[in-house]
Amino acid sequence: MADEGQHNDLPPIVDLRQSATALRVQRGVMRMLRERHDMACYAEVPLSNGRRADVLAVGPKGEIWIIEIKSSLIDFQVDRKWPEYREFSDKFFFAKPPELDGEIFPQSEGLIVADGHDGAILRDSPDTPLAPARRKALILKLARLGADRIHALMDPGPR
Amino acid sequence: MADEGQHNDLPPIVDLRQSATALRVQRGVMRMLRERHDMACYAEVPLSNGRRADVLAVGPKGEIWIIEIKSSLIDFQVDRKWPEYREFSDKFFFAKPPELDGEIFPQSEGLIVADGHDGAILRDSPDTPLAPARRKALILKLARLGADRIHALMDPGPR
Repeated sequence: MADEGQHNDLPPIVDLRQSATALRVQRGVMRMLRERHDMACYAEVPLSNGRRADVLAVGPKGEIWIIEIKSSLIDFQVDRKWPEYREFSDKFFFAKPPELDGEIFPQSEGLIVADGHDGAILRDSPDTPLAPARRKALILKLARLGADRIHALMDPGPR
Repeated sequence: MADEGQHNDLPPIVDLRQSATALRVQRGVMRMLRERHDMACYAEVPLSNGRRADVLAVGPKGEIWIIEIKSSLIDFQVDRKWPEYREFSDKFFFAKPPELDGEIFPQSEGLIVADGHDGAILRDSPDTPLAPARRKALILKLARLGADRIHALMDPGPR
């Protein structure tokens, strides 16, 4: 899911670019983070560096976690830019389906396993605290993104 | 719409407590704010003082506007607590349907007229800038609220 899409304005309920496997992992990751870590989760968040975070979670104190979903070995291998997510998160995790070997991922990063029902953190992420100004800007952006996505569902606009 | 509901966890797409008139005004207010003021709008935002803001809008610099919808004279008359919204907003507006007399509202507050298609600011609001700590807490709360509302639509949870 290393991509820059043309659909930034679409509601994120369904993302046609994602594989079925990636969608299952996304669902389990988000459910686990919501239910056991009190993290509020967005899917598909465009960042100011041009990347999109597969899952971006916001904690009660403004902690930002980014989760990059890799559904296959090739999906991981073709992505050389994942270190850029570190610039936008306090913690960074790869997330994988149960059938994918966890050894392919760098030991230096967090790792989550998830299916369509649930997930678990296999390895915690090092802390890389955001600068206060970036955190502030990112949280404001998310507050507006959330409003706009819900509003687009309530009212796509004048016809 | 001065009320404390029991439905805080429901997605805000449809709010059964609102009158048809209030829903039309809400739609026009939110559309106008999105399209002409670059304000990202939430409907039905619970505040820490126990009130719910009918519409709460977030500007590109973190400005917070609250809009209280009054669909009838009685709706305005029974609400004695609207000044409390001032504590949570940089600008505060009443919003009314076209058929309701604008003279019933205090001259000291902002006033918006709206129907189901569009709206207009009839009178600007004085600026009552939020304290930085409250603004920061409110924007974080909105970032998490937006995430949770969208997530609830994507995935209501385990069954």
